[in-house]
Amino acid sequence: MATPSPGYSITLRVETPASFTATSELAAAVAAAGAAITALDVTESHHDSMVVDISCNTVDAAHGERVSAALDELDGVQVRKVSDRTFLMHLGGKLEVVPKVPLRNRDDLSRAYTPGVARVCMAIAENPDDARRLTVKRNTIAVVTDGSAVLGLGNIGPAAALPVMEGKAALFKQFADVDAWPVCLDTQDTEEIIKIVKALAPVYGGVNLEDIAAPRCFEIEQRLRDELDIPVFHDDQHGTAIVTLAALQNALKVVHKKIEDVKIVVAGVGAAGNAIIQLLKAQGALNIIACGRNGAISRTETYTDAHRTWLAENTNPDNFTGTLHDAVAGADVFIGVSGPNVLGEEQVATMADDAIIFAMANPDPEVDPAIAAKYAAVVATGRSDFPNQINNVLAFPGFFRGLLDAGVADITPEMLVAAAHAIADRVSGEELNASFIIPSVFDPHVASDVAAAVASAAAAK
Amino acid sequence: MATPSPGYSITLRVETPASFTATSELAAAVAAAGAAITALDVTESHHDSMVVDISCNTVDAAHGERVSAALDELDGVQVRKVSDRTFLMHLGGKLEVVPKVPLRNRDDLSRAYTPGVARVCMAIAENPDDARRLTVKRNTIAVVTDGSAVLGLGNIGPAAALPVMEGKAALFKQFADVDAWPVCLDTQDTEEIIKIVKALAPVYGGVNLEDIAAPRCFEIEQRLRDELDIPVFHDDQHGTAIVTLAALQNALKVVHKKIEDVKIVVAGVGAAGNAIIQLLKAQGALNIIACGRNGAISRTETYTDAHRTWLAENTNPDNFTGTLHDAVAGADVFIGVSGPNVLGEEQVATMADDAIIFAMANPDPEVDPAIAAKYAAVVATGRSDFPNQINNVLAFPGFFRGLLDAGVADITPEMLVAAAHAIADRVSGEELNASFIIPSVFDPHVASDVAAAVASAAAAK
Repeated sequence: MATPSPGYSITLRVETPASFTATSELAAAVAAAGAAITALDVTESHHDSMVVDISCNTVDAAHGERVSAALDELDGVQVRKVSDRTFLMHLGGKLEVVPKVPLRNRDDLSRAYTPGVARVCMAIAENPDDARRLTVKRNTIAVVTDGSAVLGLGNIGPAAALPVMEGKAALFKQFADVDAWPVCLDTQDTEEIIKIVKALAPVYGGVNLEDIAAPRCFEIEQRLRDELDIPVFHDDQHGTAIVTLAALQNALKVVHKKIEDVKIVVAGVGAAGNAIIQLLKAQGALNIIACGRNGAISRTETYTDAHRTWLAENTNPDNFTGTLHDAVAGADVFIGVSGPNVLGEEQVATMADDAIIFAMANPDPEVDPAIAAKYAAVVATGRSDFPNQINNVLAFPGFFRGLLDAGVADITPEMLVAAAHAIADRVSGEELNASFIIPSVFDPHVASDVAAAVASAAAAK
Repeated sequence: MATPSPGYSITLRVETPASFTATSELAAAVAAAGAAITALDVTESHHDSMVVDISCNTVDAAHGERVSAALDELDGVQVRKVSDRTFLMHLGGKLEVVPKVPLRNRDDLSRAYTPGVARVCMAIAENPDDARRLTVKRNTIAVVTDGSAVLGLGNIGPAAALPVMEGKAALFKQFADVDAWPVCLDTQDTEEIIKIVKALAPVYGGVNLEDIAAPRCFEIEQRLRDELDIPVFHDDQHGTAIVTLAALQNALKVVHKKIEDVKIVVAGVGAAGNAIIQLLKAQGALNIIACGRNGAISRTETYTDAHRTWLAENTNPDNFTGTLHDAVAGADVFIGVSGPNVLGEEQVATMADDAIIFAMANPDPEVDPAIAAKYAAVVATGRSDFPNQINNVLAFPGFFRGLLDAGVADITPEMLVAAAHAIADRVSGEELNASFIIPSVFDPHVASDVAAAVASAAAAK
C-alpha cells in the first residue's frame, strides 16, 4: 500500500560517465527502484563525466537507501551525496519572530520602546482589557504540548515534539493569519501543566492543546476552560470532531441517509473518539456504538474512568455487547480513530448497503481504502494520497481566527457545529460526489468561512 | 528639564478657516505651546475652510492636552481629533510569528508537517542535540518577566509589561536577527518562576530575564544558571553592566585616568548596581563605594541579605561610612542607577578634577546633566536627548547573537568584559571625545562586533 511521498523526498548527487543516454539511464534506474522522480538537473558537465542532481519521492528512509544503492550499481556511476529535503527544510526551524513596526531611527525606538512604551504599559495597567488592543494578545495563541502523544509516534517528549508544533504554528499563520507560538513543556504532570499554562496566559488570546495523551488531556482542557478567560481548544479532540462531522454531513447527502437514522460505529475511545461522539450527538445522531480495545462500550460493564462511563450511559441505545467486528455488521457508518488494520474485507462486507467508512488512523488506516471501496459507497482517510482527506487543517486555523475576531472567552458546542457546517458547505451541490465530500485544504475560502461561522455562533449566544 | 520627545508624539486634526496664513498661525500656536512640530499636512481644502494634520512631539500627556487647547482657542479653529502616534503604533501588538518555509502546496505541507515532520521528530528523539539544528531552538530566546519592576513604573504586572517585552523582542530581531519571544508570567513566586522557565526551556536557546524585582531576580538567575543547559542573562544586571563598563573605559581615556586608580561611587545597590560593581572589579577597579538609601555599604554595619554582605566585604577598601553626599566628595567617577535628583550642584562641585558622571536613572537622572557638565569632564545619562546615552540595546542583541552562534551553555565574566570592550572599541581614537564615549545605538557594526567578541571569549574558555 505504501507509495512514494514528498515527505520522503531525497536529492541524490550522482557522478556518471558522459554519454547521450546517461540521464535517461539514471532516471530509468530510479524508476525501476520504485521511486518517483520530481526533478533532474545536470549541475556539472565535463568531457568525460557529468554530475546530475536527481530529486525523487521515496516510500521511507530504507527505500531511499535502496534507490541510492541501485544507482551506485550502474556502470561507472557514483552517488556522491544524498540530501533529505525534509531535513533541509527544517534546518534552523520553521518560524521566526518579526517586528510589525519600523525600528529605523531614534523616533521609532522612542515609540516602540522607551520612553513612549511606558504610556502603553500604564494604559494596560489601568484598564487590563486594553491588552487585547495594544499587544500581541489580540492575535496570538499558544500551541501547548507535553510531547506525550505526538502524531502516531507516542511519548517522544517536548523537544522532539517541537517540529510538529512549529509546523502547526506555520499553518495557523499561513491559513488564517493567526500568530501561534509553540509551548513544549518539559513536564507531564497534569497539575503542573495547568499551572504553567495559566501563568503564561497574559500573552495569549487562546490556547490550542496538542498531542497530549488521554486521559490527562481531558482534565487539562476542562480545568483550563474553567480557570482561564481565554478559549481553550484541544485540536486532537475538537479539530478532528469538526472535520469528521463536516465530512459525514456531506457523505450522508451522497448516500441519501439522515444522521438520526444511521447506525454509527466509532473505533477508538481516546481523545478524538470521545469528541467525535459528542459532536455527532449534538448534531442529532441517535445510534452510536463506541468500541475500545475490548469491544463495544455498554451498560453491561462498569468502567472506572469518567469518559467510558459517560459513553456507556450516552451511546449504544440497544446495549449491544461484543467485539468491533460484531459491531460493524449492519452499520451504516464506520469512523476509525484507533490504529492500523483493525478491519478486514470480511468485516467491511457485513456493513449495510451504501456504507460510509472513515478510516483515519495515520499513516496506516483501520482498513485498506482500496478494499473498503469495494463495499462502501464513500471512503475517507487521514491520508493525502487518497480522495477525501479528513485533515484538521480545515478546521483549526479558521476556528481560532473566529475566536480571536469575536473575542471569545469560552468555546461552545454551537461553535463546533457551525464550523463543521461551514466546512461542509464549501463543497457545492455540483461538486459533491463520493470522492469529494470535503474541500481541499488549499481551498482559499475555508478558513474565512469557518471564522465567520464561529464568530456568528459566538454573537448568537 | 523636560523636552518634547517622539515618545509623546501626537497628531492633531484641525479644522481652520481658509486663509493664506492659516497653517503658519497653527504652527506658531503649537510652537508657542512648547511642542516641536514634525509634520504638517493639509488633508482637505475647501473654499472657506481647511483640514490640517499637525504632528508634533510633546513633553507628556498633559502637555499634549495643553497644545490641543491652545489650538482650540484660535479664532474659528476647531481640533477634531487628537491621535497618539505611540498608541497607534501599538495597535494589535508589535510582533508576528512568520513561517520561514513555503506552504504553497501539498508537497510543502508533506515536508513541513505530516507525514514528513515525523522523521525530524524521531531524529530529535534519538539525538536530543539535533533540536538545536532542526528547530527554532537554534535562534530563539525567551524574554521572561513577572512584571514586578517594569522600567521605572514598578510592579505593574505581566499584562502591562507585555509592550516592553514585545519591544525588546523587536530589538533583538532588528539588531541581531535573534528570534525572541515574550514570556510574561502571571506569578511572582520565585520557585514557580524557576519551575516554569525550566519547563519552557525545550523551545529556547537562551533566557533573557527582564524587569524582575530584586532580590528575587538574583535567586531566579542563579538557580536557572545552575539548573538549565542554556545561557541565562538578566539584562537589567548584565546588559547595564556591559554598557556601563564600555562607557567608563572610554570616559577614562578621555580624562587620562586608569580604572585601578580612580575612586568610584555607585548609587543604587539593586540589580544593576550589583552587576556593575562586579564587572568593574573584574576589569580591575579597586576603590568602589556602593551607596544604598542609607548611605555607604561598609563593614561597620551588618546586613541580612547576601548581596549587601558581599558588597561590604568586597568594596569600600577604606571602610568609609556616611551618606552618598559625603561619599562623592573627591570621587573620580559617579555611577547612578538609583532614582531622580539624588545629587545637587553642591555635591557635584566636591568631586575630583576631571570627574566622570553617569546619571542613568530614567526618565529623570540622578543629577541634572546640565549642572553635572559644569563640573565634570564627562557626563552620560540613560536618555536619548543628551549626548552619551548608556543604552542596553548596545549590548543585549549582539550578546545573545554570540551566545547562540557559539552554542554557549553558561555565561562567564570574560564574555561580559569582552562585550564591553567590543562596544567601547566601536568608538575610534579619532571619534573619541567627552561627548562621544559610546557608539550610537544605530551603529550597524556594534551587534556583530559584540557577537564576535562573545563567541571568541566562549571559544577561549
